Amino acid sequence: MTARIAINGYGTIGKRVADAVAAQDDMRVAGVAKTKPDFEAKLAVRKGYPLYAANKEAAAKFEKAGVKSSGTLDDLVKVADLVVDCTPEESGYKALYEKAGVKAIWQGGEEPSLTNLSFNAAANYEECLGATFVRVPSCNTTGLIRTLYPLDAHFGVANALAVMVRRATDPGDSKKGPINAIEPELEMPSHHGPDVQSVLPKLNIHTIAVKVPTTIMHLHIVTVDLKKPATADAVLDVWKRFPRVAFVAGRDGVKSTAQIMEMARDLSRNRSDLYEIAVWRDGVHVLDGKRLFYFQAVHQESDVVPENVDAIRALLEIQKDGRKSMDKTDKSLGIGMVK
Amino acid sequence: MTARIAINGYGTIGKRVADAVAAQDDMRVAGVAKTKPDFEAKLAVRKGYPLYAANKEAAAKFEKAGVKSSGTLDDLVKVADLVVDCTPEESGYKALYEKAGVKAIWQGGEEPSLTNLSFNAAANYEECLGATFVRVPSCNTTGLIRTLYPLDAHFGVANALAVMVRRATDPGDSKKGPINAIEPELEMPSHHGPDVQSVLPKLNIHTIAVKVPTTIMHLHIVTVDLKKPATADAVLDVWKRFPRVAFVAGRDGVKSTAQIMEMARDLSRNRSDLYEIAVWRDGVHVLDGKRLFYFQAVHQESDVVPENVDAIRALLEIQKDGRKSMDKTDKSLGIGMVK
Amino acid sequence: MTARIAINGYGTIGKRVADAVAAQDDMRVAGVAKTKPDFEAKLAVRKGYPLYAANKEAAAKFEKAGVKSSGTLDDLVKVADLVVDCTPEESGYKALYEKAGVKAIWQGGEEPSLTNLSFNAAANYEECLGATFVRVPSCNTTGLIRTLYPLDAHFGVANALAVMVRRATDPGDSKKGPINAIEPELEMPSHHGPDVQSVLPKLNIHTIAVKVPTTIMHLHIVTVDLKKPATADAVLDVWKRFPRVAFVAGRDGVKSTAQIMEMARDLSRNRSDLYEIAVWRDGVHVLDGKRLFYFQAVHQESDVVPENVDAIRALLEIQKDGRKSMDKTDKSLGIGMVK
Amino acid sequence: MTARIAINGYGTIGKRVADAVAAQDDMRVAGVAKTKPDFEAKLAVRKGYPLYAANKEAAAKFEKAGVKSSGTLDDLVKVADLVVDCTPEESGYKALYEKAGVKAIWQGGEEPSLTNLSFNAAANYEECLGATFVRVPSCNTTGLIRTLYPLDAHFGVANALAVMVRRATDPGDSKKGPINAIEPELEMPSHHGPDVQSVLPKLNIHTIAVKVPTTIMHLHIVTVDLKKPATADAVLDVWKRFPRVAFVAGRDGVKSTAQIMEMARDLSRNRSDLYEIAVWRDGVHVLDGKRLFYFQAVHQESDVVPENVDAIRALLEIQKDGRKSMDKTDKSLGIGMVK
Repeated sequence: MTARIAINGYGTIGKRVADAVAAQDDMRVAGVAKTKPDFEAKLAVRKGYPLYAANKEAAAKFEKAGVKSSGTLDDLVKVADLVVDCTPEESGYKALYEKAGVKAIWQGGEEPSLTNLSFNAAANYEECLGATFVRVPSCNTTGLIRTLYPLDAHFGVANALAVMVRRATDPGDSKKGPINAIEPELEMPSHHGPDVQSVLPKLNIHTIAVKVPTTIMHLHIVTVDLKKPATADAVLDVWKRFPRVAFVAGRDGVKSTAQIMEMARDLSRNRSDLYEIAVWRDGVHVLDGKRLFYFQAVHQESDVVPENVDAIRALLEIQKDGRKSMDKTDKSLGIGMVK
Repeated sequence: MTARIAINGYGTIGKRVADAVAAQDDMRVAGVAKTKPDFEAKLAVRKGYPLYAANKEAAAKFEKAGVKSSGTLDDLVKVADLVVDCTPEESGYKALYEKAGVKAIWQGGEEPSLTNLSFNAAANYEECLGATFVRVPSCNTTGLIRTLYPLDAHFGVANALAVMVRRATDPGDSKKGPINAIEPELEMPSHHGPDVQSVLPKLNIHTIAVKVPTTIMHLHIVTVDLKKPATADAVLDVWKRFPRVAFVAGRDGVKSTAQIMEMARDLSRNRSDLYEIAVWRDGVHVLDGKRLFYFQAVHQESDVVPENVDAIRALLEIQKDGRKSMDKTDKSLGIGMVK
Repeated sequence: MTARIAINGYGTIGKRVADAVAAQDDMRVAGVAKTKPDFEAKLAVRKGYPLYAANKEAAAKFEKAGVKSSGTLDDLVKVADLVVDCTPEESGYKALYEKAGVKAIWQGGEEPSLTNLSFNAAANYEECLGATFVRVPSCNTTGLIRTLYPLDAHFGVANALAVMVRRATDPGDSKKGPINAIEPELEMPSHHGPDVQSVLPKLNIHTIAVKVPTTIMHLHIVTVDLKKPATADAVLDVWKRFPRVAFVAGRDGVKSTAQIMEMARDLSRNRSDLYEIAVWRDGVHVLDGKRLFYFQAVHQESDVVPENVDAIRALLEIQKDGRKSMDKTDKSLGIGMVK
Repeated sequence: MTARIAINGYGTIGKRVADAVAAQDDMRVAGVAKTKPDFEAKLAVRKGYPLYAANKEAAAKFEKAGVKSSGTLDDLVKVADLVVDCTPEESGYKALYEKAGVKAIWQGGEEPSLTNLSFNAAANYEECLGATFVRVPSCNTTGLIRTLYPLDAHFGVANALAVMVRRATDPGDSKKGPINAIEPELEMPSHHGPDVQSVLPKLNIHTIAVKVPTTIMHLHIVTVDLKKPATADAVLDVWKRFPRVAFVAGRDGVKSTAQIMEMARDLSRNRSDLYEIAVWRDGVHVLDGKRLFYFQAVHQESDVVPENVDAIRALLEIQKDGRKSMDKTDKSLGIGMVK
């Protein structure tokens, strides 16, 4: 029987999770809940997703706008086995899910303490099997785990320092800036370091973030002191054995995040997303045998999407083997084309 | 027999025309010619398009980079019935095509005098039937023709003034600016007015252009003095009868070009393109019964793509009826979903 | 006796008005009122302006931050002959000024109906002599009046259409966007047309606005149907006789608003401001003898500053002759250097 | 006798050096040499700087444009004691200066090997006394030296890692991008590390650079392993004893580079420049007693200007004591106001 998945919150992440769920053969979209009857709501209906209003106020707006809904979130959770919560952070639906007896997955905007269990398919799938509630860390954190977990497993990470040059807002937003400034996150470490440790508790990592006027990708500059000596090639070889890490090269004309997203569009995937973390092959350097530097780019809108699909399988125990779930997810989304 | 189409120049437009040709059942991609063995070349190979080097120097670069090619452009034109030339303006391949005896279609960067015949499927398909050489006007010009031709046909256009707020470069480019400035085109009229007249010679139009720091779409502010009185609703009704004009609304949350492209991504089309011209429904105003104002947004990377496909059919006389060609093209590309 | 001027609101406009007032010999800064004890408050103190908290809550914040204030706004109005209100629109201080019996000048964010009298030094100085309350229209409106009033006076304006390509936010702000989008103002006309008419009630003008990702200047594209025939040179000659219109030229390397502001910085004025409206000399075109097109750039942070100084003189009847006030103001600010 | 200083190249740096030289009482502007008769040339004339054409071709352009020049560079060097070369990198004027027997100072775009002596007033003024040729390192390098030299002198720097988030181009340029991308410098270390060592040869530093779509400032994220333990306050105390390091604070509303440059404008300096390196007071953190992190912002257009003035004094031996030269320069430029 296919699992019935509700998506609460149909914004940047929610709509992508919905499409990814719909692309699987062992789960289906039970419905999506939204607060506003805007163009995204209309497109959800066109895709055939049962549309629910987030609450009664939202239901009134839907009716006024002439957008038909199948009920409210209260109704939706009754027909679902699991809710993927993609609402803004601290929206506070946990009690509702508990009362309804549905499992739930939250996104990285929430505090790790909300679930006390955070998920990354490559790092701790098995640990999350059968859990009631889990949290998929944010795009940046997921990006760091994708490349640091393999490094730690193969070479040992003595300590890691990640400077994250963050996109300021998503492409579909036109309200937020800055238009012409760089903004440091003055508190230190940024929340990403502890967030990585919510999945990899023993990893010694410090993170620093600055915000810049771009919308398309984050870029990370990562410095790692390895326990065992390595070469750039050896590091690349390790990453190649992991899914969801893709490679680009300046010498192929991929000079910036602009060309990475251009390549992503050329891959003809849904929404031109890039679920993989993109690492510059010719930007990996090892100094003195043990100090590794690399650049990676993170498509903030989509890298967590396959993780959510895998988390569903783990919580509902549809698949006990994490690697098999990842393979299935990746195949359905076209991941793994760029190595 | 399916027509054999060569694409010379595999950049923003060329790669889209290739994919659009490949999506038709009455034509196929004979090959694509490129100058550089970059990531786009590698992706072309992955898509199964026979890859040719633009010339011998390019061939040497391809070999050096380990990218296999099927020969050079000279070889490609021999196995093609028609070349779609998507090279930078004034690349000067006309003589080569003439010598090879192939038909050819150029893009809007070229001067109208290169072909003395410019093409727009809705406006003059029949006029171009069987022609040897034709030119598809630029993205901005095509955008203006899409909405002005219907207005002229139904209400008569006494005169039109279009202010074009232009994106400065395409999303995949990271070299060009401005980053923080507005740049007027001081010469007047901009080339777009005469360019519209290359298809609609009797249309009285004046065009003005400014460049702004954005990459995703152009925005046009159009003022039209109509010969017959009209209302905003009547104008919208006319446009609805034409393909390749889509509608958006501020009241649906589409406040800017950012949300239009977000919507385009949500449509799950190839490369998240929007082949239609997007008109803001709630931005159409008629003052004093005859002076019409409207805003339209143009996806500069893709609006000419369906026009190229239709132009192929017209030149090769695969289809004598323009409207049938447009319907076929539009169905293959998913156009017509947003009305 | 020098007039005592209070400035309520010490942001982009307020701090500039304060400095401009301080540069005159017939008025002085009685004090400036602020809501936040931020770096701008600290710099106000360093400049020697008596600093007042906007209200009691603000006073508490000032004390907590260790920034000394001379009291609250209530105290400030008692020692002032006139208040220049540079607070955000609809802050609602009118009753307070009325009660205190001080004259006041508001900025263009307010509705014209707040004062029923709007001010432009060149257009209606004499009309405002001795008034109690007046409003200086916004940067964009002031910019339009600066060039349209002379045209109307000399050639007659049958009708004018202004498309305003607006900077999205000021350089000192890092919160607002868009980062990568163009946003049309769908309601029509934009408020600027009626706002021009608050000073020039008989001028037939329609205005349209779009917002773009830049911080430094607005750019206007103006189309005017003149009543009397004119040439581009004749139009330039008229403007040259008016202060606060400056000229730039693409052929001198001033291609965009970036170079205009670079030139402004090179003029070594306070804050690198450009109080004049900059018109591109080689962007003025007349078609068919009567249809005039021109481009002008507006430094949104400063063009209204000299108008505020003149408005003070008009309301307090320090100077009865508008042109003499303008000359005095302009000399003190370094205006008139670029012709 | 006042030293006669020629400035060859009158762009971003050249025009600032000219103004700074003009502001001293022990040197004067003998003339400035330019290649184009653009608005900057006209403004140079207005400032009273003798204007020279860079060469005969330039002289012809000047004449054609009606801009009077005092001769060519060949003439200028004859009436100068020292040339500050602010031409684009590798312009190759060294032989000309040698032949003319004038001393010269180059900017950081040149390779350190051009002069084999690089200059920073705080770090090695005395070392450069009487030298014939010297080079002032680039804005970024100068910025790093300004804060690292004091740290090394007081605490000892075991190693330093600087990630530089670079503005893509200057505010007065409208050609270069990116508009919406982040571009890493894939080669490592970036040239800045070795460049710091051209002044501080024993400093163990690694530098990494990325380019972002902003024009106003660079931002550095610096990690330093100190030899002696320190606290954030102790580090701030050391920097306070050095000129040309200024402090800002997020808690004062300075959240990003936008507010820093706003503050710079409020200081009413020439061109709104900020000659100091701005360090965020509340962004200085020390972990485990010895690992220091801090953020600093660099005004790329002006931080090297006072260094050039001091270098002139060192080379011409006008002042033997570096600290006295710095004090004199700083006083003339208004530096030292923000502590």
